[in-house]
Amino acid sequence: MSNAIILMNNQLKPQQVEMLTQLAEGYRFVTKADLAEGDFEYVEIMYGWDKSYTEAQRQSFKRLKWIQATSAGVDYLPMDIIQNPQIMISNMSGIHATPIAESVFGYLLATGRQLFTSQLQQRESNWNRPEHGGYFSLKDKVLLVYGTGNIGQEIARIGHNFSMEVIGINTNGRAIEGFDACYATAEADLIVGKADFIVSTLPATANTRHYFAENWFKMLKATALFINVGRGQTVDETALYEALKAKQIGGAYLDVFHEEPLPESSTLWELESLLISPHISGQIEHFQEETFPIFKENLVSYLNEGKLARNIVAKDKGY
Amino acid sequence: MSNAIILMNNQLKPQQVEMLTQLAEGYRFVTKADLAEGDFEYVEIMYGWDKSYTEAQRQSFKRLKWIQATSAGVDYLPMDIIQNPQIMISNMSGIHATPIAESVFGYLLATGRQLFTSQLQQRESNWNRPEHGGYFSLKDKVLLVYGTGNIGQEIARIGHNFSMEVIGINTNGRAIEGFDACYATAEADLIVGKADFIVSTLPATANTRHYFAENWFKMLKATALFINVGRGQTVDETALYEALKAKQIGGAYLDVFHEEPLPESSTLWELESLLISPHISGQIEHFQEETFPIFKENLVSYLNEGKLARNIVAKDKGY
Repeated sequence: MSNAIILMNNQLKPQQVEMLTQLAEGYRFVTKADLAEGDFEYVEIMYGWDKSYTEAQRQSFKRLKWIQATSAGVDYLPMDIIQNPQIMISNMSGIHATPIAESVFGYLLATGRQLFTSQLQQRESNWNRPEHGGYFSLKDKVLLVYGTGNIGQEIARIGHNFSMEVIGINTNGRAIEGFDACYATAEADLIVGKADFIVSTLPATANTRHYFAENWFKMLKATALFINVGRGQTVDETALYEALKAKQIGGAYLDVFHEEPLPESSTLWELESLLISPHISGQIEHFQEETFPIFKENLVSYLNEGKLARNIVAKDKGY
Repeated sequence: MSNAIILMNNQLKPQQVEMLTQLAEGYRFVTKADLAEGDFEYVEIMYGWDKSYTEAQRQSFKRLKWIQATSAGVDYLPMDIIQNPQIMISNMSGIHATPIAESVFGYLLATGRQLFTSQLQQRESNWNRPEHGGYFSLKDKVLLVYGTGNIGQEIARIGHNFSMEVIGINTNGRAIEGFDACYATAEADLIVGKADFIVSTLPATANTRHYFAENWFKMLKATALFINVGRGQTVDETALYEALKAKQIGGAYLDVFHEEPLPESSTLWELESLLISPHISGQIEHFQEETFPIFKENLVSYLNEGKLARNIVAKDKGY
């Protein structure tokens, strides 16, 4: 029996571990809690990453060849891991499309139907019923989606079902099925002012950092709603705070932030036209059932052919 | 010029009144505020109803022939008006389907994505992120809709787009396009226990009064969510309160109540698993634009043929 270890930084169900054990003969399955100091150098495969590994510990992962991340974005991986050519990285891109799209439409619909206001009024036993004012329907609205991958496509599909016009933004403006039109990022300024709702699904890369900044917010409609379910690094949070405070835009929903958890001292918490959720838009009802098939398929491929079958992260792009 | 009056209990835009004036030659358009005591007997047509008319005033409407209600349900009309064979009644059924369906899905999606919880936590600057627990997707869930009219059909259409199984309940179980299956009200007990979400769009009639009572709630799944966007009279509110308090069901959203406004003293306000909105689920963004064409079409038909073209209320059914 070899000493090679499959390290499970994320939990799997006992039956799932049992199934993998039969597939990966000769490997030891070890959880982070059970990992002894002498084990580090034998870790060959990781299921999930753990942010608490120190640089010294990371350097001890001498035989590490593959990390199957349990998230879609992998920007939290340290540079020394990403840039190590010996380590392949795969992600869970795709499985978060449904919950993230449901989060986006939960926000838009509940806002348009004043359900968030209703919840707050309920806590004061307050039956206040504004007549014919302040409501909006999604029908005939213009939805602009930054990022036309799995998540953007699912948002577009649902948007059409609510009779919206859906426009996509991607790097080169290539047409993507399910969008009424697509523009390149460089042309986005032409269209941003027409949008009623803007959703960003952008990853954190050098190119997207602080893309949503003061000048960008200035181009929006005064009633526009901005939603970020991508990565916090793409938004200049001070600029967004100022735009909301000055009522330059109608409102915003942020699920992701520069610093997570969002510090208690952040001024963002207090904005009434902003909804904050704690990076949960992609959380999945049956997480282990949805992620397991991807890990299993890649494990079989890795063991048989030494390469991954799917969801491979392009290290140069970072997603 | 005759003395016949078209009484506007609901507001119309000046251009709309202008357009109607040209259509209805010889009629006077009077708003409720401008209605003199001597005018009552000349009112022939009403646009909208006003609940503040006393019985004596109602008896003075001697020439009243048609009420164009601005709502879908007309259960608030007094019996002496409904039963008067001289008075035709038409409603605005249809125009509320989109906003009501959007309200239903706003509640379901925002609940499944824990956005209501997020809003409450935000007020305490609280980043609490339950991992993989408590979220739900609409995918593969069973949605049961009481009432398969315009509103029910729109809810079914959207439900399918979120990959739900949608079952309709109507009086005789007739098949309705857009539903996976339909059951008669008498057979509903067979299917209620399978539903994840139940939406009622039922009107208030003698047959629907307190349909949703103690024994009905006992048949539901422990995780079931109950939504009432029909009429408050259909729900035994004490039974619902007890079912929620005892966690017999997962939660509820009520937009309609026995008594509206819901009295400040009601114990319903305090339930954390209940969302209350102040009868706004059907409120429309551009109300006058959506209702005007229906009134206008009926007015033309009334003036030319003495009958209504559409949205006629069947007085025996009450809707």
